[in-house]
Amino acid sequence: MPATTTDAARRDPEEALAALRASVGPGDDAAARDARERQAQLTKPAGALGVLEDVSVQLSSIARACPPPVPSRPAVAIFAGDHGVHAAGVSPWPQEVTAGMVENFRAGGAAVNVLARACGARVVVVDVGVVGPVEPGPDVLVRKVRPGTADLSVGPAMTRDEALAALLVGAQVAADLVADGHDLLLTGDMGIGNTTPSACLVAALTGVTARTATGRGTGVDDATFARKVGVVEDAVARLAPDADPVAVLAEVGGLEHAALAGFVLGGAAAGVPVLLDGVIAGSAALVAVALAPYAAAYLLAGHRSVEPGHTAALRHLGLRPLVDLDLRLGEGSGAALAVPLVRAAALLLGEMATFDGAGVARKQA
Amino acid sequence: MPATTTDAARRDPEEALAALRASVGPGDDAAARDARERQAQLTKPAGALGVLEDVSVQLSSIARACPPPVPSRPAVAIFAGDHGVHAAGVSPWPQEVTAGMVENFRAGGAAVNVLARACGARVVVVDVGVVGPVEPGPDVLVRKVRPGTADLSVGPAMTRDEALAALLVGAQVAADLVADGHDLLLTGDMGIGNTTPSACLVAALTGVTARTATGRGTGVDDATFARKVGVVEDAVARLAPDADPVAVLAEVGGLEHAALAGFVLGGAAAGVPVLLDGVIAGSAALVAVALAPYAAAYLLAGHRSVEPGHTAALRHLGLRPLVDLDLRLGEGSGAALAVPLVRAAALLLGEMATFDGAGVARKQA
Repeated sequence: MPATTTDAARRDPEEALAALRASVGPGDDAAARDARERQAQLTKPAGALGVLEDVSVQLSSIARACPPPVPSRPAVAIFAGDHGVHAAGVSPWPQEVTAGMVENFRAGGAAVNVLARACGARVVVVDVGVVGPVEPGPDVLVRKVRPGTADLSVGPAMTRDEALAALLVGAQVAADLVADGHDLLLTGDMGIGNTTPSACLVAALTGVTARTATGRGTGVDDATFARKVGVVEDAVARLAPDADPVAVLAEVGGLEHAALAGFVLGGAAAGVPVLLDGVIAGSAALVAVALAPYAAAYLLAGHRSVEPGHTAALRHLGLRPLVDLDLRLGEGSGAALAVPLVRAAALLLGEMATFDGAGVARKQA
Repeated sequence: MPATTTDAARRDPEEALAALRASVGPGDDAAARDARERQAQLTKPAGALGVLEDVSVQLSSIARACPPPVPSRPAVAIFAGDHGVHAAGVSPWPQEVTAGMVENFRAGGAAVNVLARACGARVVVVDVGVVGPVEPGPDVLVRKVRPGTADLSVGPAMTRDEALAALLVGAQVAADLVADGHDLLLTGDMGIGNTTPSACLVAALTGVTARTATGRGTGVDDATFARKVGVVEDAVARLAPDADPVAVLAEVGGLEHAALAGFVLGGAAAGVPVLLDGVIAGSAALVAVALAPYAAAYLLAGHRSVEPGHTAALRHLGLRPLVDLDLRLGEGSGAALAVPLVRAAALLLGEMATFDGAGVARKQA
C-alpha cells in the first residue's frame, strides 16, 4: 500500500470527518429481503442455520446483491499505539511490549499472523502512536500521530486534532485496502494499557458503570483492578455532558481507538463488511456508530472477549458474536478466527439446493 | 471406500464390541503436559487463547505429539436411518425426506456439503436404516441393518443384534476412513424423527427428565411437543434399571445413533479426534462413553445445538462446544463449521513465536 498523503488529510480534518460521516449510507433492504426469501427455499427447516442466516442477510444487504459474493480477500489492519495511562499502573506488562509485538507481527510470529495465514488474510500493521521508533516496511505503515497518548488519569489523552488525525488515518487505511481489492476488513489492535481507554469509551458511550466496563485485561491482580476501575471512573466523570464522540475519544481514548473508529467508518463508507475483534474494536465501534449510525449495518462481531466491557459494547451495538471461546488476546485474533464462519454464511446462501431444485418434500403444514 | 465384509462383522458381534471397547485407550499425558508448557512460552498472556489452548492440549494428547499435526484430511460420515416412532406423530416432516436428503447429499446440495467443501472435508453417506431403497455409489454406502426402526413408543426400537450390527457398521466406517488417511472424523446424521430417540438416550444416560431432554427438533408445535415429551417419558420408563448401553440403544435408540456410537469408538480406537455435531451425535456419544470411558478423551464438540438435550449431553460429557450459533440442522453441519477452529488451535500451538524467540518482554511479576 503506497504511503500517499491522502485526500482527506489534505482537507480540514473536521470537514474531512463530516464528509466521511456523510458517505456512510444504509444497506440495501431489497437485497436483504431477497436473502430472507431465498433462505426459506433452501433444503433445511426454516431458521435451522441460526445466526448464519442473519449473517447471510446482512452480507446481502451490504453487497447489495443476493446471494452476496463470498469474501475472498480479507485484510486485518492492526493499529498500534501506546498509552500514557500506563504510568498509572494499570497493566503488569512493560510498555515496550507494544513495539516488541509490532516486530513480532512483522516477522509473522504472533497469534494473529497464524490465524490470518489460516484464512488467507493480509496483515497490515499501522503505527499510529507507538512510543519508540518503528521502521516502515512492507505492510508496516508508520502514521504516528504522536508517540503515545498523555496519561488520561490526570488529563486529556490527546488533543481533538490528534484524535481527528488518528481517525482519518484509520479511514484512509480502510479506503486503501478496499482500493487494493480487499472485500472484508478485520480490525486489529496492539497497545499495552489499551483496555483502560476501552473501558472509558464503553462507560462513556453506553452508560454502564466504570466497574461494569472494566476488566482484567491481559491479567491484572485485585489491587491493579481496583486502581483501574478508579482511573476509569474519574476519567469518565471529567467528560462534559455534551461532549461529542471526538471529544470523548480525545479525553479518554487511545490513538488506536481513534484509528479503529475511522477504519470502521472507512469500511462502511466503501460498502465493505467490517469484522470486529474484541473490546478495543468494540469500544471504537461505539464511537464510529455515534458518528454515523448507519455504520452499524456494516459491522460483524468476530468474537466475544472475556472483557466485560465488550459484552456491554456488543449489546449496545446489537451485535451477536460469532466466536465465544474465552479469548482475550486482541491483535485481531478473534476477528480472524471468525472469517471461515462469515464465508460459510455466504456460501450456504449461494450454494445450497432449494426444495424444488432437489425434489425434497417439505414440512407438512 | 471398498464395500468389504469387515473383520469385526465376521466375528460374533458381542465379541467384536468387547474387542472394540478394549481397544480404546487413554490419551498421552506427557504430550498434553508438553502442550501446556509450550502454551506458556508463546507470545501472548497466559490463557489469552481461551478454549483454543485446551483444544491444542487435547489434540496433542490424542496425537501423542506436541505440537500436534494440523488435521488436513477431515471426513464427515453421515449415518442415515428412519424411525418407526414417526408414526406417533413426533415430526411435521414426511418420512421420505430422509431418502430425499440422502440424494441431496449425493448431489452435493445440502448444507453439510457446502460446509464440507469449505473446509476440505470428504462426505460419506452411510445408509444404516433408511426405509426406502438407496442406490450405492461413490461415497454412498448401503449398510442397511433394517429399513427403519420399530416404533419406540410401543416397544423396542430394534433388537440387540440390530443395535450391535449398526454399531459395528459405524466402527468399521471410522476404521476405513482412518485407513484412507483421514485424520479428523466428523459425525453426521440424517433421519426424520431422530430427535425423539436422541432425547430418550439423553434422558436414559444422563438422568435428566424427559421434559429437559426433549426439544422441538426441526420445528414442532405445542401439541406435537407435548406428545413427544410423553413418548420419551414412557419409553425411558420401560428401560430395565440394569440395562447396559447396548440394551438402551436397542430399546429407545435409532440405527444412526447406534452407528454413530460405533463411529466414535472406532475413531477413538484409531487414535483420531472425533468432532461431534449436535444432539444426535451427542446422544450417541453418551452411549460410546458409557461403553468405553476413555473415548471421551477423543471427543470435540463442534457446536451447541438449540435442542436442550444437547446441552445436557455436553455437560455430561464435559465438552465445551466450539460454535454456538443457534443451529439445529444436523447432517454434520455444526461439526463442519468447527473444523477451522480445530485447525486454528493446532496451528497456534505449532506456529506462534515464543517470548524468547521473538525477543518480546514478559509480564512483570
